[in-house]
Amino acid sequence: MTALQSPFARKLGAFVALSEEELSALDSLYGRRKAFPAGRDMVHQGQTDQSAYILASGWVCSYKLLSGGSRQIVDFQIPGDFLGLRSVLFRTSDHNVEPVTRVEASEVLAKDLLETFSKTPRLATAVLWAASRDEAMVVEHLVGIGRRNAKERMAHFLLELGARLKLVGLGSTSGYACPLSQYLLADAMGLSAIHVNRVLRELREEGLVTFQHGQVEFDDLDGLVLLADFDKTYLDHDGPLLK
Amino acid sequence: MTALQSPFARKLGAFVALSEEELSALDSLYGRRKAFPAGRDMVHQGQTDQSAYILASGWVCSYKLLSGGSRQIVDFQIPGDFLGLRSVLFRTSDHNVEPVTRVEASEVLAKDLLETFSKTPRLATAVLWAASRDEAMVVEHLVGIGRRNAKERMAHFLLELGARLKLVGLGSTSGYACPLSQYLLADAMGLSAIHVNRVLRELREEGLVTFQHGQVEFDDLDGLVLLADFDKTYLDHDGPLLK
Repeated sequence: MTALQSPFARKLGAFVALSEEELSALDSLYGRRKAFPAGRDMVHQGQTDQSAYILASGWVCSYKLLSGGSRQIVDFQIPGDFLGLRSVLFRTSDHNVEPVTRVEASEVLAKDLLETFSKTPRLATAVLWAASRDEAMVVEHLVGIGRRNAKERMAHFLLELGARLKLVGLGSTSGYACPLSQYLLADAMGLSAIHVNRVLRELREEGLVTFQHGQVEFDDLDGLVLLADFDKTYLDHDGPLLK
Repeated sequence: MTALQSPFARKLGAFVALSEEELSALDSLYGRRKAFPAGRDMVHQGQTDQSAYILASGWVCSYKLLSGGSRQIVDFQIPGDFLGLRSVLFRTSDHNVEPVTRVEASEVLAKDLLETFSKTPRLATAVLWAASRDEAMVVEHLVGIGRRNAKERMAHFLLELGARLKLVGLGSTSGYACPLSQYLLADAMGLSAIHVNRVLRELREEGLVTFQHGQVEFDDLDGLVLLADFDKTYLDHDGPLLK
Protein backbone atom coordinates (compact mmCIF):
# COMPACT_ATOMS: atom_id res chain seq x y z
CA MET A 1 0.00 0.00 0.00
CA THR A 2 1.44 3.41 -0.88
CA ALA A 3 1.03 6.39 1.41
CA LEU A 4 -1.23 8.02 -1.15
CA GLN A 5 -3.75 5.23 -0.77
CA SER A 6 -3.46 4.70 2.97
CA PRO A 7 -6.43 5.76 5.11
CA PHE A 8 -4.09 7.91 7.24
CA ALA A 9 -2.87 9.86 4.19
CA ARG A 10 -6.45 10.19 2.91
CA LYS A 11 -7.51 11.58 6.26
CA LEU A 12 -4.64 14.06 6.70
CA GLY A 13 -5.12 14.97 3.05
CA ALA A 14 -8.50 16.40 4.02
CA PHE A 15 -6.60 19.16 5.81
CA VAL A 16 -3.24 19.45 4.05
CA ALA A 17 -2.62 18.96 0.33
CA LEU A 18 0.28 16.54 0.89
CA SER A 19 3.51 16.98 -1.08
CA GLU A 20 5.66 14.09 -2.31
CA GLU A 21 8.04 14.74 0.58
CA GLU A 22 5.22 14.71 3.12
CA LEU A 23 3.73 11.53 1.67
CA SER A 24 7.09 9.81 1.92
CA ALA A 25 7.49 11.05 5.52
CA LEU A 26 4.13 9.40 6.27
CA ASP A 27 5.30 6.25 4.49
CA SER A 28 8.28 6.02 6.82
CA LEU A 29 5.90 5.95 9.81
CA TYR A 30 4.30 2.74 8.54
CA GLY A 31 7.44 0.64 8.96
CA ARG A 32 6.57 -1.27 12.11
CA ARG A 33 3.29 -2.89 10.98
CA LYS A 34 1.79 -5.38 13.44
CA ALA A 35 -1.39 -7.44 13.71
CA PHE A 36 -3.50 -7.62 16.88
CA PRO A 37 -6.32 -10.05 17.72
CA ALA A 38 -9.74 -8.80 18.80
CA GLY A 39 -10.35 -8.33 22.52
CA ARG A 40 -6.81 -7.87 23.81
CA ASP A 41 -5.80 -4.32 24.83
CA MET A 42 -3.13 -2.67 22.64
CA VAL A 43 -2.68 0.34 24.92
CA HIS A 44 -3.13 0.17 28.70
CA GLN A 45 -4.38 2.94 30.96
CA GLY A 46 -1.74 3.86 33.53
CA GLN A 47 1.23 2.38 31.65
CA THR A 48 4.26 4.45 30.78
CA ASP A 49 6.35 4.28 27.61
CA GLN A 50 3.45 3.10 25.50
CA SER A 51 3.68 3.28 21.74
CA ALA A 52 1.11 4.98 19.55
CA TYR A 53 -0.31 3.29 16.46
CA ILE A 54 -1.75 4.30 13.14
CA LEU A 55 -4.66 2.00 12.38
CA ALA A 56 -4.45 0.43 8.90
CA SER A 57 -7.36 -2.01 9.01
CA GLY A 58 -10.02 -3.13 11.47
CA TRP A 59 -11.85 -1.34 14.27
CA VAL A 60 -10.84 -0.56 17.85
CA CYS A 61 -12.49 1.13 20.80
CA SER A 62 -10.86 3.43 23.32
CA TYR A 63 -12.21 3.41 26.84
CA LYS A 64 -11.62 4.58 30.37
CA LEU A 65 -11.65 2.13 33.23
CA LEU A 66 -13.10 3.36 36.51
CA SER A 67 -11.87 2.26 39.92
CA GLY A 68 -15.17 0.44 40.56
CA GLY A 69 -14.48 -1.75 37.53
CA SER A 70 -17.02 -0.18 35.17
CA ARG A 71 -15.89 1.29 31.88
CA GLN A 72 -16.93 4.09 29.55
CA ILE A 73 -16.21 3.73 25.84
CA VAL A 74 -15.07 7.15 24.65
CA ASP A 75 -14.94 6.48 20.92
CA PHE A 76 -14.31 3.90 18.23
CA GLN A 77 -11.35 4.22 15.89
CA ILE A 78 -11.36 3.25 12.24
CA PRO A 79 -8.59 2.92 9.63
CA GLY A 80 -6.57 6.12 9.34
CA ASP A 81 -7.00 7.01 13.00
CA PHE A 82 -4.20 7.48 15.49
CA LEU A 83 -4.41 5.19 18.52
CA GLY A 84 -2.92 6.31 21.78
CA LEU A 85 -1.46 9.59 20.55
CA ARG A 86 -1.85 10.95 24.07
CA SER A 87 0.07 7.91 25.34
CA VAL A 88 3.22 9.12 23.61
CA LEU A 89 2.76 12.85 24.19
CA PHE A 90 1.94 12.30 27.84
CA ARG A 91 4.24 10.10 29.85
CA THR A 92 1.47 7.79 30.94
CA SER A 93 -1.47 6.50 28.95
CA ASP A 94 -4.77 7.85 30.27
CA HIS A 95 -6.97 5.31 28.48
CA ASN A 96 -7.19 1.80 27.06
CA VAL A 97 -7.34 0.80 23.40
CA GLU A 98 -8.94 -2.55 22.55
CA PRO A 99 -9.38 -4.09 19.09
CA VAL A 100 -13.02 -4.79 18.26
CA THR A 101 -11.94 -6.90 15.26
CA ARG A 102 -8.56 -8.25 14.24
CA VAL A 103 -6.58 -5.14 13.33
CA GLU A 104 -3.37 -4.16 11.59
CA ALA A 105 -1.61 -1.08 12.83
CA SER A 106 1.78 0.61 12.51
CA GLU A 107 3.62 1.26 15.73
CA VAL A 108 4.88 4.84 16.05
CA LEU A 109 7.46 5.73 18.68
CA ALA A 110 7.42 9.19 20.26
CA LYS A 111 10.86 10.01 18.85
CA ASP A 112 9.89 9.04 15.28
CA LEU A 113 6.80 11.20 15.53
CA LEU A 114 8.68 14.21 16.88
CA GLU A 115 11.41 13.79 14.26
CA THR A 116 8.81 13.67 11.50
CA PHE A 117 7.21 16.84 12.84
CA SER A 118 10.49 18.68 12.94
CA LYS A 119 11.38 17.68 9.37
CA THR A 120 7.93 18.20 7.87
CA PRO A 121 6.18 20.75 10.12
CA ARG A 122 3.00 20.79 8.01
CA LEU A 123 2.43 17.21 9.14
CA ALA A 124 2.47 18.42 12.76
CA THR A 125 -0.29 20.86 11.86
CA ALA A 126 -2.19 18.08 10.06
CA VAL A 127 -1.95 15.82 13.12
CA LEU A 128 -3.05 18.80 15.27
CA TRP A 129 -6.06 19.11 12.97
CA ALA A 130 -6.78 15.37 13.32
CA ALA A 131 -6.46 15.59 17.11
CA SER A 132 -8.80 18.60 17.12
CA ARG A 133 -11.31 16.59 15.08
CA ASP A 134 -11.02 13.76 17.61
CA GLU A 135 -11.67 16.26 20.38
CA ALA A 136 -14.68 17.64 18.47
CA MET A 137 -16.08 14.10 18.28
CA VAL A 138 -15.67 13.55 22.02
CA VAL A 139 -17.44 16.88 22.55
CA GLU A 140 -20.33 15.60 20.41
CA HIS A 141 -20.46 12.40 22.48
CA LEU A 142 -20.53 14.51 25.66
CA VAL A 143 -23.38 16.59 24.25
CA GLY A 144 -25.11 13.35 23.17
CA ILE A 145 -24.97 11.80 26.63
CA GLY A 146 -25.76 15.12 28.32
CA ARG A 147 -28.56 16.45 26.11
CA ARG A 148 -29.77 14.11 23.35
CA ASN A 149 -32.42 11.44 23.82
CA ALA A 150 -31.57 7.83 22.95
CA LYS A 151 -32.91 7.97 19.41
CA GLU A 152 -31.19 11.24 18.49
CA ARG A 153 -27.97 9.97 20.08
CA MET A 154 -27.99 6.76 18.04
CA ALA A 155 -28.88 8.60 14.81
CA HIS A 156 -26.04 11.08 15.41
CA PHE A 157 -23.59 8.29 16.16
CA LEU A 158 -24.43 6.33 13.00
CA LEU A 159 -24.17 9.46 10.84
CA GLU A 160 -20.84 10.47 12.35
CA LEU A 161 -19.37 7.01 11.73
CA GLY A 162 -20.68 7.13 8.17
CA ALA A 163 -19.00 10.48 7.46
CA ARG A 164 -15.71 9.30 9.01
CA LEU A 165 -15.71 6.04 7.03
CA LYS A 166 -16.60 7.84 3.80
CA LEU A 167 -13.57 10.13 4.19
CA VAL A 168 -11.20 7.14 4.23
CA GLY A 169 -13.00 5.30 1.45
CA LEU A 170 -14.84 2.75 3.61
CA GLY A 171 -18.40 4.00 3.31
CA SER A 172 -20.78 5.91 1.08
CA THR A 173 -23.94 7.96 1.50
CA SER A 174 -25.88 4.70 1.25
CA GLY A 175 -24.16 3.00 4.18
CA TYR A 176 -21.19 1.03 5.52
CA ALA A 177 -20.06 -2.22 7.08
CA CYS A 178 -20.02 -1.97 10.90
CA PRO A 179 -18.72 -4.71 13.22
CA LEU A 180 -20.02 -3.12 16.46
CA SER A 181 -22.24 -5.23 18.69
CA GLN A 182 -25.24 -3.80 20.50
CA TYR A 183 -23.28 -4.21 23.75
CA LEU A 184 -20.50 -1.97 22.47
CA LEU A 185 -23.01 0.59 21.19
CA ALA A 186 -24.74 0.53 24.58
CA ASP A 187 -21.45 1.05 26.40
CA ALA A 188 -20.50 4.01 24.20
CA MET A 189 -23.90 5.67 24.39
CA GLY A 190 -24.66 5.19 28.07
CA LEU A 191 -27.72 3.04 27.27
CA SER A 192 -28.67 -0.53 28.10
CA ALA A 193 -28.32 -3.15 25.34
CA ILE A 194 -32.10 -3.61 25.44
CA HIS A 195 -32.59 0.11 24.93
CA VAL A 196 -30.16 0.08 21.98
CA ASN A 197 -32.10 -2.78 20.44
CA ARG A 198 -35.38 -0.90 20.82
CA VAL A 199 -34.00 2.35 19.40
CA LEU A 200 -32.52 0.56 16.37
CA ARG A 201 -35.86 -1.13 15.74
CA GLU A 202 -37.69 2.21 15.93
CA LEU A 203 -35.24 3.85 13.50
CA ARG A 204 -35.70 0.94 11.11
CA GLU A 205 -39.50 0.92 11.36
CA GLU A 206 -39.58 4.67 10.72
CA GLY A 207 -37.67 4.05 7.50
CA LEU A 208 -34.62 6.08 8.55
CA VAL A 209 -31.73 3.63 8.95
CA THR A 210 -31.29 -0.13 9.13
CA PHE A 211 -28.44 -1.67 11.14
CA GLN A 212 -28.54 -5.43 10.68
CA HIS A 213 -26.04 -8.23 10.05
CA GLY A 214 -23.03 -5.93 10.38
CA GLN A 215 -24.30 -3.46 7.82
CA VAL A 216 -25.64 0.08 8.30
CA GLU A 217 -27.95 1.18 5.47
CA PHE A 218 -29.20 4.75 5.33
CA ASP A 219 -32.82 4.40 4.20
CA ASP A 220 -33.57 8.12 4.49
CA LEU A 221 -30.35 10.08 5.00
CA ASP A 222 -32.00 13.53 5.05
CA GLY A 223 -34.60 12.39 7.54
CA LEU A 224 -31.92 10.92 9.79
CA VAL A 225 -29.83 14.12 9.62
CA LEU A 226 -32.92 16.11 10.61
CA LEU A 227 -33.76 13.81 13.51
CA ALA A 228 -30.19 13.88 14.85
CA ASP A 229 -29.70 17.62 14.20
CA PHE A 230 -26.46 16.42 12.62
CA ASP A 231 -24.26 19.33 11.55
CA LYS A 232 -21.06 17.80 10.19
CA THR A 233 -19.14 21.06 10.54
CA TYR A 234 -17.17 19.54 13.41
CA LEU A 235 -15.72 16.87 11.11
CA ASP A 236 -14.36 19.52 8.68
CA HIS A 237 -14.37 17.40 5.53
CA ASP A 238 -14.58 20.15 2.93
CA GLY A 239 -11.13 19.75 1.43
CA PRO A 240 -7.64 20.95 2.34
CA LEU A 241 -7.24 24.32 4.02
CA LEU A 242 -3.45 24.12 3.73
CA LYS A 243 -2.61 24.04 0.05
CA MET B 1 4.23 40.83 30.49
CA THR B 2 7.05 38.84 28.97
CA ALA B 3 6.44 35.49 27.29
CA LEU B 4 8.34 33.77 30.07
CA GLN B 5 5.77 34.91 32.59
CA SER B 6 2.66 34.50 30.46
CA PRO B 7 0.25 31.71 31.44
CA PHE B 8 0.43 30.37 27.86
CA ALA B 9 4.23 30.05 28.00
CA ARG B 10 4.02 28.50 31.47
CA LYS B 11 1.56 25.95 30.17
CA LEU B 12 3.46 25.02 26.99
CA GLY B 13 6.61 25.00 29.09
CA ALA B 14 5.16 21.98 30.90
CA PHE B 15 5.72 20.02 27.70
CA VAL B 16 8.58 21.77 25.89
CA ALA B 17 11.56 23.45 27.52
CA LEU B 18 11.16 26.68 25.54
CA SER B 19 14.19 28.28 23.91
CA GLU B 20 14.70 32.04 23.58
CA GLU B 21 13.59 31.82 19.95
CA GLU B 22 10.46 29.89 20.86
CA LEU B 23 9.60 32.30 23.66
CA SER B 24 9.92 35.21 21.30
CA ALA B 25 7.76 33.41 18.71
CA LEU B 26 5.11 33.08 21.41
CA ASP B 27 5.56 36.75 22.24
CA SER B 28 4.74 37.69 18.68
CA LEU B 29 1.38 35.90 18.98
CA TYR B 30 0.34 38.25 21.80
CA GLY B 31 0.26 41.36 19.60
CA ARG B 32 -3.48 41.77 19.10
CA ARG B 33 -4.58 41.92 22.76
CA LYS B 34 -8.27 42.74 23.29
CA ALA B 35 -10.67 42.98 26.23
CA PHE B 36 -14.11 41.33 26.24
CA PRO B 37 -17.00 41.91 28.67
CA ALA B 38 -18.65 39.01 30.50
CA GLY B 39 -21.64 37.35 28.87
CA ARG B 40 -21.08 38.23 25.22
CA ASP B 41 -19.88 35.39 22.93
CA MET B 42 -16.34 35.81 21.56
CA VAL B 43 -16.61 32.85 19.17
CA HIS B 44 -19.89 31.81 17.54
CA GLN B 45 -20.92 28.29 16.58
CA GLY B 46 -21.53 28.04 12.85
CA GLN B 47 -19.55 31.13 11.87
CA THR B 48 -16.72 30.97 9.37
CA ASP B 49 -13.44 32.89 9.46
CA GLN B 50 -13.41 33.12 13.23
CA SER B 51 -10.23 34.06 15.03
CA ALA B 52 -8.71 32.02 17.82
CA TYR B 53 -7.56 33.61 21.06
CA ILE B 54 -5.01 32.97 23.75
CA LEU B 55 -6.59 33.80 27.09
CA ALA B 56 -4.44 36.15 29.20
CA SER B 57 -6.77 36.88 32.11
CA GLY B 58 -10.29 35.98 33.21
CA TRP B 59 -12.44 32.90 32.71
CA VAL B 60 -14.56 31.77 29.76
CA CYS B 61 -16.80 28.80 29.05
CA SER B 62 -17.14 26.92 25.77
CA TYR B 63 -20.49 25.39 24.97
CA LYS B 64 -22.54 23.75 22.27
CA LEU B 65 -25.96 25.09 21.40
CA LEU B 66 -28.60 22.51 20.46
CA SER B 67 -31.35 23.12 17.93
CA GLY B 68 -33.98 22.98 20.72
CA GLY B 69 -32.28 25.98 22.36
CA SER B 70 -30.66 24.11 25.24
CA ARG B 71 -26.91 24.21 25.74
CA GLN B 72 -24.19 21.96 27.10
CA ILE B 73 -21.10 23.56 28.61
CA VAL B 74 -18.13 21.49 27.47
CA ASP B 75 -15.41 23.11 29.55
CA PHE B 76 -14.19 26.29 31.16
CA GLN B 77 -11.01 27.97 29.98
CA ILE B 78 -8.52 29.73 32.20
CA PRO B 79 -5.51 31.95 31.48
CA GLY B 80 -3.02 30.23 29.17
CA ASP B 81 -5.72 28.32 27.32
CA PHE B 82 -6.40 28.52 23.62
CA LEU B 83 -9.95 29.60 22.75
CA GLY B 84 -11.49 28.47 19.48
CA LEU B 85 -8.42 26.66 18.14
CA ARG B 86 -10.77 24.41 16.18
CA SER B 87 -12.42 27.54 14.76
CA VAL B 88 -9.25 28.40 12.86
CA LEU B 89 -8.19 24.84 11.95
CA PHE B 90 -11.69 24.00 10.77
CA ARG B 91 -13.40 26.39 8.42
CA THR B 92 -16.42 26.81 10.64
CA SER B 93 -16.57 27.09 14.41
CA ASP B 94 -18.30 24.10 15.99
CA HIS B 95 -18.88 25.73 19.38
CA ASN B 96 -19.41 29.00 21.24
CA VAL B 97 -17.02 30.73 23.61
CA GLU B 98 -18.48 33.07 26.22
CA PRO B 99 -16.57 35.08 28.84
CA VAL B 100 -17.66 34.25 32.38
CA THR B 101 -15.80 37.32 33.69
CA ARG B 102 -14.25 40.27 31.91
CA VAL B 103 -11.34 38.78 29.99
CA GLU B 104 -8.25 39.85 28.10
CA ALA B 105 -7.17 37.71 25.20
CA SER B 106 -4.81 37.89 22.23
CA GLU B 107 -6.38 37.32 18.84
CA VAL B 108 -4.50 34.78 16.74
CA LEU B 109 -5.20 34.49 13.01
CA ALA B 110 -4.90 31.12 11.28
CA LYS B 111 -2.07 32.35 9.08
CA ASP B 112 -0.03 33.65 12.03
CA LEU B 113 -0.44 30.34 13.81
CA LEU B 114 0.57 28.28 10.78
CA GLU B 115 3.53 30.58 10.13
CA THR B 116 4.68 30.21 13.73
CA PHE B 117 4.41 26.43 13.46
CA SER B 118 6.47 26.33 10.30
CA LYS B 119 9.22 28.55 11.77
CA THR B 120 9.28 26.92 15.21
CA PRO B 121 7.97 23.35 14.75
CA ARG B 122 8.46 22.42 18.40
CA LEU B 123 5.69 24.91 19.18
CA ALA B 124 3.35 22.95 16.88
CA THR B 125 4.11 19.85 18.94
CA ALA B 126 3.55 21.84 22.14
CA VAL B 127 0.17 23.07 20.90
CA LEU B 128 -0.64 19.49 19.85
CA TRP B 129 0.16 18.45 23.42
CA ALA B 130 -2.09 21.22 24.79
CA ALA B 131 -4.91 20.17 22.42
CA SER B 132 -4.46 16.55 23.51
CA ARG B 133 -4.71 17.65 27.13
CA ASP B 134 -7.92 19.54 26.29
CA GLU B 135 -9.27 16.38 24.67
CA ALA B 136 -8.29 14.35 27.73
CA MET B 137 -10.29 16.78 29.88
CA VAL B 138 -13.37 16.45 27.66
CA VAL B 139 -12.96 12.66 27.95
CA GLU B 140 -12.97 13.02 31.74
CA HIS B 141 -16.13 15.13 31.57
CA LEU B 142 -17.74 12.49 29.35
CA VAL B 143 -16.79 9.79 31.86
CA GLY B 144 -18.06 12.04 34.65
CA ILE B 145 -21.49 12.52 33.10
CA GLY B 146 -21.63 8.89 31.95
CA ARG B 147 -20.35 7.07 35.03
CA ARG B 148 -19.69 9.22 38.11
CA ASN B 149 -22.30 10.17 40.67
CA ALA B 150 -22.91 13.85 41.38
CA LYS B 151 -20.56 14.08 44.34
CA GLU B 152 -17.66 12.30 42.60
CA ARG B 153 -18.23 14.42 39.52
CA MET B 154 -18.07 17.67 41.47
CA ALA B 155 -15.01 16.56 43.44
CA HIS B 156 -13.24 15.58 40.20
CA PHE B 157 -14.15 18.86 38.57
CA LEU B 158 -12.85 21.00 41.46
CA LEU B 159 -9.60 19.00 41.61
CA GLU B 160 -9.04 19.26 37.85
CA LEU B 161 -9.54 23.03 37.91
CA GLY B 162 -7.15 23.28 40.85
CA ALA B 163 -4.41 21.37 39.01
CA ARG B 164 -4.89 23.45 35.85
CA LEU B 165 -4.78 26.74 37.76
CA LYS B 166 -1.73 25.68 39.75
CA LEU B 167 0.17 24.99 36.51
CA VAL B 168 -0.29 28.60 35.38
CA GLY B 169 0.40 30.09 38.81
CA LEU B 170 -3.21 30.84 39.78
CA GLY B 171 -3.78 28.24 42.45
CA SER B 172 -2.08 26.12 45.08
CA THR B 173 -2.73 22.83 46.86
CA SER B 174 -4.76 24.80 49.39
CA GLY B 175 -7.19 26.25 46.85
CA TYR B 176 -8.00 28.92 44.27
CA ALA B 177 -10.30 31.81 43.37
CA CYS B 178 -13.21 30.61 41.21
CA PRO B 179 -15.82 32.91 39.63
CA LEU B 180 -18.20 30.13 38.51
CA SER B 181 -21.81 30.33 39.64
CA GLN B 182 -23.79 27.27 40.70
CA TYR B 183 -25.81 27.68 37.49
CA LEU B 184 -22.68 27.36 35.36
CA LEU B 185 -21.48 24.38 37.40
CA ALA B 186 -24.89 22.74 36.96
CA ASP B 187 -24.83 23.32 33.22
CA ALA B 188 -21.35 21.81 32.87
CA MET B 189 -22.07 18.81 35.05
CA GLY B 190 -25.53 17.93 33.81
CA LEU B 191 -27.06 18.56 37.25
CA SER B 192 -29.72 20.96 38.49
CA ALA B 193 -28.57 24.07 40.38
CA ILE B 194 -30.33 22.72 43.48
CA HIS B 195 -28.41 19.47 43.17
CA VAL B 196 -25.12 21.36 42.81
CA ASN B 197 -25.95 23.33 45.94
CA ARG B 198 -26.68 20.13 47.90
CA VAL B 199 -23.53 18.36 46.70
CA LEU B 200 -21.34 21.35 47.61
CA ARG B 201 -22.91 21.44 51.07
CA GLU B 202 -22.25 17.72 51.57
CA LEU B 203 -18.62 18.05 50.48
CA ARG B 204 -18.19 20.96 52.90
CA GLU B 205 -19.90 19.18 55.82
CA GLU B 206 -17.72 16.12 55.25
CA GLY B 207 -14.66 18.36 55.63
CA LEU B 208 -13.38 17.75 52.09
CA VAL B 209 -13.69 21.04 50.21
CA THR B 210 -15.37 24.41 50.71
CA PHE B 211 -16.56 26.46 47.74
CA GLN B 212 -17.93 29.75 49.05
CA HIS B 213 -17.75 33.43 48.12
CA GLY B 214 -15.79 32.74 44.93
CA GLN B 215 -13.12 30.73 46.70
CA VAL B 216 -12.40 27.00 46.59
CA GLU B 217 -10.54 25.75 49.68
CA PHE B 218 -9.29 22.17 49.82
CA ASP B 219 -9.98 21.13 53.42
CA ASP B 220 -8.80 17.54 52.90
CA LEU B 221 -7.07 17.19 49.55
CA ASP B 222 -6.19 13.51 49.94
CA GLY B 223 -9.72 12.63 50.97
CA LEU B 224 -11.13 14.52 47.98
CA VAL B 225 -8.71 12.78 45.57
CA LEU B 226 -9.81 9.44 46.99
CA LEU B 227 -13.51 10.25 46.70
CA ALA B 228 -13.15 11.45 43.10
CA ASP B 229 -10.75 8.66 42.09
CA PHE B 230 -8.75 11.57 40.66
CA ASP B 231 -5.71 10.37 38.71
CA LYS B 232 -4.08 13.47 37.29
CA THR B 233 -2.12 11.49 34.71
CA TYR B 234 -4.33 12.93 31.98
CA LEU B 235 -3.13 16.46 32.76
CA ASP B 236 0.53 15.47 32.28
CA HIS B 237 2.09 18.08 34.54
CA ASP B 238 5.35 16.33 35.40
CA GLY B 239 7.70 18.64 33.53
CA PRO B 240 8.90 18.95 29.93
CA LEU B 241 9.24 15.79 27.81
CA LEU B 242 10.87 17.77 24.99
CA LYS B 243 14.10 19.19 26.37
